[in-house]
Amino acid sequence: VRPLDGAAAEAARARQRELLKPPGSLGRLEDLAVWLASATGRAVPDVRARVVVAAADHGVAAEGVSAYPQEVTAQMLSAFAAGRAAVGVLAREVAADVVVVDAGVAGAAPAGVLRSGLRPARNLAREPALAPAAVDAALALGRRLAADAAAAGVTVLVGGEMGIANTTPATALAAWLTGGGSELCGRGTGVDDAGLRRKRAAVDRALALHRPQIGGPRDALARLGGGEIAVLCGLALGAGEQGLAYVCDGLIATAAAAVATAVEPRLRERLLAGHRSPEPAHGALLAHLGLDPVLDLGMRLGEGSGATAAVAILRLACALHRDMATFAEAGVAT
Amino acid sequence: VRPLDGAAAEAARARQRELLKPPGSLGRLEDLAVWLASATGRAVPDVRARVVVAAADHGVAAEGVSAYPQEVTAQMLSAFAAGRAAVGVLAREVAADVVVVDAGVAGAAPAGVLRSGLRPARNLAREPALAPAAVDAALALGRRLAADAAAAGVTVLVGGEMGIANTTPATALAAWLTGGGSELCGRGTGVDDAGLRRKRAAVDRALALHRPQIGGPRDALARLGGGEIAVLCGLALGAGEQGLAYVCDGLIATAAAAVATAVEPRLRERLLAGHRSPEPAHGALLAHLGLDPVLDLGMRLGEGSGATAAVAILRLACALHRDMATFAEAGVAT
Repeated sequence: VRPLDGAAAEAARARQRELLKPPGSLGRLEDLAVWLASATGRAVPDVRARVVVAAADHGVAAEGVSAYPQEVTAQMLSAFAAGRAAVGVLAREVAADVVVVDAGVAGAAPAGVLRSGLRPARNLAREPALAPAAVDAALALGRRLAADAAAAGVTVLVGGEMGIANTTPATALAAWLTGGGSELCGRGTGVDDAGLRRKRAAVDRALALHRPQIGGPRDALARLGGGEIAVLCGLALGAGEQGLAYVCDGLIATAAAAVATAVEPRLRERLLAGHRSPEPAHGALLAHLGLDPVLDLGMRLGEGSGATAAVAILRLACALHRDMATFAEAGVAT
Repeated sequence: VRPLDGAAAEAARARQRELLKPPGSLGRLEDLAVWLASATGRAVPDVRARVVVAAADHGVAAEGVSAYPQEVTAQMLSAFAAGRAAVGVLAREVAADVVVVDAGVAGAAPAGVLRSGLRPARNLAREPALAPAAVDAALALGRRLAADAAAAGVTVLVGGEMGIANTTPATALAAWLTGGGSELCGRGTGVDDAGLRRKRAAVDRALALHRPQIGGPRDALARLGGGEIAVLCGLALGAGEQGLAYVCDGLIATAAAAVATAVEPRLRERLLAGHRSPEPAHGALLAHLGLDPVLDLGMRLGEGSGATAAVAILRLACALHRDMATFAEAGVAT
């Protein structure tokens, strides 16, 4: 993972001190501009954002942990490709492009979707979710997508995901990372009380089965993860290696970034928490990573939607940093 | 004040239920779209925003309550007119236009600034800040600016302000409205400990002098207010009368909107709190009005900057509401 650029950060801080405002009065917007400067190595950074939406299916759906049937994952791929899902709308508003990846969806992927050859994850409550070779392939794909983004001039990567039942593996990973248990389960897309009980039971069973044997982050991904989570883990690692900034979305994407940070602790400083979702496991992961979310709007859709909304704020921060007059330019007394 | 349109709100809620996402999963973004629908009377509302920046000077600056000299107010008018202050940059990013008003700045206003004929406020710690006729003129000007905005097709009004020392009158008004005292004082643009003590003393003195005699909201504006606060109070009232949505910025603009709501309680439902500033009096006003801010980014610049940043989120909410596919359009199982 490439270290932050301290000289660019200092130059950005110096510019902030000269801008036409009391020091610190733009609050987090000042910090965001300085952070992006340090991540990109430019004192006046550009926000050129790309959202990678990885979708996959999960055998644990058979445990009755989601409010929606598994077919929805494949159906959503078409909406992503057409730009008509939430993340596509948000991406247009913040001038981000979107790459959609089939990271193991049951059924054939439509045109406009990158195919990975990955298969749906198996039921983590009964067996390891992914073969080690599948994890390696997913990580490599994520890294390749980050390299493609860097080559295209992207400065800010967002990882988004979709996959019926995928808050269950993400919660299991969060429990492994933070030492928690099934109390971290939330309602995901909106399961009822009975569904929440089934979800907790599935996480309990998965943790009892796998936790004692997990050998490290890559093994945790294999036992408790899923295709989209592994791709996003590789994407976050690749963002770090390519010198990009990476904006975390909700529970699933943040779990993937947290696993990546377990592999490469220096990745942490390239992460921005886009938003806070109401999922308890997301809160636990944000605390574990020490990240303070930009937005807190009760969003819990995934797709990268909360992180992409936060890119709007990052754009404002960088526009202020770039376009405001200095005290000297404005002829204002300091 | 025009009541909200219940039919438009219901139509917007029905549309939200059909959009391609689990119900409620976009959180506050769903509420914002429904609220703007109800405020504008359109099931699929447009965000066409205008920021009115009113600037004025304050005799209470003589009490040493600000970190900056009074000359800065006049100097900032040129930066506002040139679009190089923070609010101008933010407004461009959210496609809002900006109207700059001299609501009583000491010195001549530059080109591009609307003149009001108002004089700087007197020192509220020693005497009433404004003559009753000046309050009436300022309120009328604010209402006229709201009518102009409505005629131009604006749907969302933002009130911004600038005026060295103006957190002092705004805090005094907040204290009057909420029954508090000088413990509501914050550091404004960044006064040191001695300046904060002087500010508290000025607010104590103003409250002791005026509070027993205040006859109502208009009288409170006269005794404790200032030109920009009175213009923004009229602007908020005018927004309500014209059927616009109104986004509150930080302490000063929210104090003005709170006085307007004391005059017309139904205005409350047309107000959106754009952000939460660290000023204690702002928190007290938000609680008094029962408003939950969209953003909490530690901004404390004024100018309408926090509210204009929140317009970016309102735009995302309305883009999702307008552009997302429905479940039926996407052929996704519900």
